[in-house]
Amino acid sequence: MAERDLHPQCSGRLYGVGTGPGDPDLLTLKAARLLGQADVIAYFAKAGNASNALRIVQAYRRDDVIEVPLLYPVTTESHRHGDAYRQAITAFYDQMAAELAGHLSAGRDVVALSEGDPLFYGSYMHLHVRLASRFVTEVVPGITAMSGCWSLAGLPIVQGDDVLTVLPGTLDEEELAQRLAATEAAIVMKIGRNLPKVRRALARAGRLDCAVYVERGTMTEGRHLPLNRKTDDDAPYFSLVLVPGWAGRLAATDPSAEADKANAPADLETSTS
Amino acid sequence: MAERDLHPQCSGRLYGVGTGPGDPDLLTLKAARLLGQADVIAYFAKAGNASNALRIVQAYRRDDVIEVPLLYPVTTESHRHGDAYRQAITAFYDQMAAELAGHLSAGRDVVALSEGDPLFYGSYMHLHVRLASRFVTEVVPGITAMSGCWSLAGLPIVQGDDVLTVLPGTLDEEELAQRLAATEAAIVMKIGRNLPKVRRALARAGRLDCAVYVERGTMTEGRHLPLNRKTDDDAPYFSLVLVPGWAGRLAATDPSAEADKANAPADLETSTS
Repeated sequence: MAERDLHPQCSGRLYGVGTGPGDPDLLTLKAARLLGQADVIAYFAKAGNASNALRIVQAYRRDDVIEVPLLYPVTTESHRHGDAYRQAITAFYDQMAAELAGHLSAGRDVVALSEGDPLFYGSYMHLHVRLASRFVTEVVPGITAMSGCWSLAGLPIVQGDDVLTVLPGTLDEEELAQRLAATEAAIVMKIGRNLPKVRRALARAGRLDCAVYVERGTMTEGRHLPLNRKTDDDAPYFSLVLVPGWAGRLAATDPSAEADKANAPADLETSTS
Repeated sequence: MAERDLHPQCSGRLYGVGTGPGDPDLLTLKAARLLGQADVIAYFAKAGNASNALRIVQAYRRDDVIEVPLLYPVTTESHRHGDAYRQAITAFYDQMAAELAGHLSAGRDVVALSEGDPLFYGSYMHLHVRLASRFVTEVVPGITAMSGCWSLAGLPIVQGDDVLTVLPGTLDEEELAQRLAATEAAIVMKIGRNLPKVRRALARAGRLDCAVYVERGTMTEGRHLPLNRKTDDDAPYFSLVLVPGWAGRLAATDPSAEADKANAPADLETSTS
């Protein structure tokens, strides 16, 4: 594969488009415009599940658009470090890229949706690296889930010379604790059943008291609360834990008026309307 | 201060609105809508400098909107750890918050602009912590400069269980090198005159070869190229260095076809149109 498209002037364009964290109002103007022009909309989904990305863009797509679902071949991540999984998923991405290449070669503009931002933990990048050398390609950034979450919580996350570390909750407790102790601010992703471990790591790093738990970011059923008030039993996989740098540091080092200001966004146990 | 507004039902609402990385097309639908409704638009700027945030939203604001420039009292950051600077900047934020509180109490909706994302290294957060407890406040996330940059460069930045570290280029060389060696992906912000030091730190961490330099993100004059091809002499303060996790790792560990795919976005020395 990877041969150049023979008739680039007739080929369609590939757009990797971030849909943002869930609220359709957080699409960019560019994303909405491209959706209204696209001949083909491709989206990743698990077989049998509705696509969240497709729901987000529903109001902006053309009625006659060609939908191309990209259905993951495996539904659990339990064996994702195994060779069989790796071969299956590589073959899947090859096949999906070939399907989109067919549309592009036929002159159709393709928008490949990505929840959040396409190149930030997004499956889109597997299409990008297979197609960007052959077709005119553009990536349209989207609001990340973490931005949606700290905005919903009204939580200043980093300021000045703060270091921010983005960590998957799948890391082991020792590594999580070390990394949490060595950064001003942190975002812990992929919480789900990792929550008890993440909580222990935060406690070991002395960061538990300022940690905020956010569930389903900017969706209508989203909510956020201090992690200390969240039980371990029912965290969805796509929930996040935010450890603020600036506000957390102010509150910890200066118990005066400035700390009160920093605590302004502390009225946290709220649901979005 | 910090007393509750006495007539909340008559007060205006405060919106902290991210303008994204520079291209007005990367405003969110929500930001564009709020800009069309706002009575007051507040923006941070240095005295004598045009506001980049104001330029970004120009086409979306009302003709009769009240503009409130928030002019920083100091123009260099050289003494920003000193007490005098701290007092001056705290008094400045107090005064600006009081000015916006006047508009809000008078029933005017205020949009406070923030380049990028308001709570991610944005000055807006200093207003937020002073006003959010007194007025109805909402933060509208924006595309960060780093998202704009990796999208422009078409560079997959993190995947799977990658750790991402966001570092200010102002850290000392030793700390930069240690942190760069201990993360899969990194973003180094505030490059400017720190570029020679950042380059040495990347070399010590063994990450120089995959680092990408991006200047002026998604503005019309933006450009990106491998850091190895960028000279040290003229980096603007708001340039970034991207160290990709996934693509960089693939290229380093697997020189086969998969690495070729990962290198698809390697045609990097391009300017945006």
